[in-house]
Amino acid sequence: MTYDLWYWESIPGRGEFVRLALEAGGIPYRERAREPGASDDALIADMRAERAHPPFAPPYLVADEMTLGQTANILLFLGEKHGLAPDSLEGRLWVNQLQLTIADMVTEAHDTHHPVSSSDYYEDQKGEAARRARSFREERIPKFLSYFERVLAGTSAWLADGERWTYVDLSLFHLVDGLLYAFPKRMGTVASHYPNVMALHARVAALPELQPYFSSGRRLPFGECIFRQYRELDAP
Amino acid sequence: MTYDLWYWESIPGRGEFVRLALEAGGIPYRERAREPGASDDALIADMRAERAHPPFAPPYLVADEMTLGQTANILLFLGEKHGLAPDSLEGRLWVNQLQLTIADMVTEAHDTHHPVSSSDYYEDQKGEAARRARSFREERIPKFLSYFERVLAGTSAWLADGERWTYVDLSLFHLVDGLLYAFPKRMGTVASHYPNVMALHARVAALPELQPYFSSGRRLPFGECIFRQYRELDAP
Repeated sequence: MTYDLWYWESIPGRGEFVRLALEAGGIPYRERAREPGASDDALIADMRAERAHPPFAPPYLVADEMTLGQTANILLFLGEKHGLAPDSLEGRLWVNQLQLTIADMVTEAHDTHHPVSSSDYYEDQKGEAARRARSFREERIPKFLSYFERVLAGTSAWLADGERWTYVDLSLFHLVDGLLYAFPKRMGTVASHYPNVMALHARVAALPELQPYFSSGRRLPFGECIFRQYRELDAP
Repeated sequence: MTYDLWYWESIPGRGEFVRLALEAGGIPYRERAREPGASDDALIADMRAERAHPPFAPPYLVADEMTLGQTANILLFLGEKHGLAPDSLEGRLWVNQLQLTIADMVTEAHDTHHPVSSSDYYEDQKGEAARRARSFREERIPKFLSYFERVLAGTSAWLADGERWTYVDLSLFHLVDGLLYAFPKRMGTVASHYPNVMALHARVAALPELQPYFSSGRRLPFGECIFRQYRELDAP
């Protein structure tokens, strides 16, 4: 059975957290808005279709005749069904909890460049963005990364402390990847405070399961997305 | 077995979503920071304690020797264990998906008064707050509430379309309650567009299971919390 992943065609966005799990898990899927002849218009039309459980926003996954929305919820399903999460209830809840904390930081990273309105241009909220980005760099990056550092200090290699990665390791990798892209100066200053986080980032980057994806050309570059490279929002 | 709920002692905040599920489910719990002699200091000390699975932030629940953080994650556990969610996998994922969408709107409601920094005073970001609140009132309230209206239009009475409420009905009740408190003018203008949402709000408010809690004096008033009544942030 091939799953259908629906997300915007040209950005990594929140869809990337799902893609990484599907790719690393070797789970067959089609990315519907990126198929030949399709586009964001196909996604918008599909979002409007009548269905029992409509998603609020992309990404969503059509799997086993279910439509599953919300990134962390999709990953909860994939983790349990495809062995990308611990077997125990406690382990699965722990991985979900960490995923939700990553989701919180992702939202805050987005809001550094859109603190006033998602539907307005960045250029129309640059002043507010400068203030929000400063708070994010100085307070929020250390708060979140020191938390993940604390978690990793108590484990062997992976966040859930098993012998194998779980989907939340992939997500933390992508989060750190995004921070390195959007805030290179700030990360240059603070990365050495979080050696376990940075080691996890390197470990996931080297996962054999992900190399085909990384070398495929299918992994979309950051750009006009959650993680953006506005130099004026970065500082050491 | 009595669960331990840890949250700030004097605000409803995100803890209220957990409280409502515990109360409506008739699940015994102690609110640790609100016990005699305790306070937020007890919470802060407990947050710093060594544990295998530290929470990033309150609320968290200590249950069955697990420490569970992230509101939606706590509710996922309670829903499954105490019958506050559907039995089927699809139903449980759907309820979780809706809960995460509610959580997104809760974060956005908070950011109307703190768009720049959570650690700065509202008074120091009033200009930014005015812009963010306008976008929230005019774009985000309709977007979220019309989504829940669409979901409810396809069900009999409850979001998950069973004969009984699930925890996400309680959460939507509290979200609407917060919006009515913080944005009374705006809700006065738009509430009639969302008759099913408002009917659900009234239905939960009248749930026999919740009346003891509502009349107990234990339900904390809104105040310096997620939902705040700043008149300058509201408009029809």
